[in-house]
Amino acid sequence: MLVPAHPFDRALELEPTGRPGVLRGHTTPDWANMVGPFGGMTAALLLRAVEEHPERIGEPTALTVNFAAPVADGPFDIAANAVRTNRTTQHWLVELSQNGAVTTNATAVFGIRRETWENTEQAPPRAPAPAHVAESGLPDMIAWARNYEMRYVEGAVPGVGAEPESSSVTTLWARDRHGRAVDFAALTAMSDIFYPRVFLRRGAMSPAGTISLTTYFHADGAQLAAVGDDYVLATARAHRFSRGYFDQSAELWSYSGELLVTTHQMVYFKA
Amino acid sequence: MLVPAHPFDRALELEPTGRPGVLRGHTTPDWANMVGPFGGMTAALLLRAVEEHPERIGEPTALTVNFAAPVADGPFDIAANAVRTNRTTQHWLVELSQNGAVTTNATAVFGIRRETWENTEQAPPRAPAPAHVAESGLPDMIAWARNYEMRYVEGAVPGVGAEPESSSVTTLWARDRHGRAVDFAALTAMSDIFYPRVFLRRGAMSPAGTISLTTYFHADGAQLAAVGDDYVLATARAHRFSRGYFDQSAELWSYSGELLVTTHQMVYFKA
Repeated sequence: MLVPAHPFDRALELEPTGRPGVLRGHTTPDWANMVGPFGGMTAALLLRAVEEHPERIGEPTALTVNFAAPVADGPFDIAANAVRTNRTTQHWLVELSQNGAVTTNATAVFGIRRETWENTEQAPPRAPAPAHVAESGLPDMIAWARNYEMRYVEGAVPGVGAEPESSSVTTLWARDRHGRAVDFAALTAMSDIFYPRVFLRRGAMSPAGTISLTTYFHADGAQLAAVGDDYVLATARAHRFSRGYFDQSAELWSYSGELLVTTHQMVYFKA
Repeated sequence: MLVPAHPFDRALELEPTGRPGVLRGHTTPDWANMVGPFGGMTAALLLRAVEEHPERIGEPTALTVNFAAPVADGPFDIAANAVRTNRTTQHWLVELSQNGAVTTNATAVFGIRRETWENTEQAPPRAPAPAHVAESGLPDMIAWARNYEMRYVEGAVPGVGAEPESSSVTTLWARDRHGRAVDFAALTAMSDIFYPRVFLRRGAMSPAGTISLTTYFHADGAQLAAVGDDYVLATARAHRFSRGYFDQSAELWSYSGELLVTTHQMVYFKA
């Protein structure tokens, strides 16, 4: 068996279990978060399980991942089931389980794309070229973040003694440090590249975790192939923080200014 | 059996089936769309099935509804299953089926809210008071729309001979025409009150349908009770239209300026 060259591909490996539609994976230390694996990696695995399913048609258009319980380090099973297959769209239910208990579930819509009227109405955030933005990242204890080269244009993670900010906007250039090209799984992971918005608004880290993550794919596979391993411009903001939860809306743009993904999440927090 | 006074409550009625966690409902002509029922009503029913489940804890924080196939006029069953119950959050999987086939599924996260730091970062859209905005609506063939009083501040549905617009923004004051107060189910339905954004950009109606709808609830039950049957300010926009799909992001605000809901959807279209 060939061992994939890139940490992302190693973490994304799924093997047959003998049960139809059920694949087995393993967490990898490279993609660890504070507790369990990086949520973006888990989301990417759920998407990949559908991509590898023999009944799958088309490419991903919408994905919602619900983080119901922590994923423990070790093996896990992912069961993907086609709920409905239409002529050009297909609906999936995907469940990640450990020891028979579901920790994470997802719904996905795949579709066969076709030519239509096309327009990008949203404007990309303003940002200097990556070479003019210093490289930084997230605190070293966040293992998964080391897989990305991160250049914060705005809203870097607050350091010791930071003051609260009035804006929750973070914008950064990001790319896989190991030169892996983006695909749908990689974009899914990058949809969760932002640290919790409440840190920025409060000027300090505090307990927070994504409970539900939705990603809409605007680019198709051919458009992603053109992005390759180039920088992606990622920008996120919150709308409201209230009684234990806040939302986050984000965009991922290609270097050439194509809107690849819009993504939204609801986050649990204490502060 | 008492018949509810309001069309929304009549459409929201669910009766026991004898099977645990499975309730039965019926489509109502009042809430019909061009084909099948209004998607917002279907979403509200899926949420309501969780609200009525004996194991439910807390209030809704996130809901994703996937429209896999049309719902036919007539009876349907909704099965709600708690995937995971944590101390303060609970994850649900909900499926609406007719004749044994799933037409619509949903994941929902409910949570017990608690006092935290609170801030609304997003600003409400500018709008004159409802009394200064003419009442209009959607074309008469859209039965469900008659349940709402709609006053378009910006981006009303294009009429005959309309020109394409450069902005997909629609903002309207809306309220239940029959004076029903908002609750989580009503806000879920209103999350889908916007006609497809592509109509506005193209200046004409064309085939379009929501494939996945996500709603984040920022207000809790007590805050909703204070809204009552007052106007809600609803605003929506698209980010990108590409190869058969576009996204929509929207906000629902109370008259007093509280952000009640942020909601997002991916829409299939031909144009």
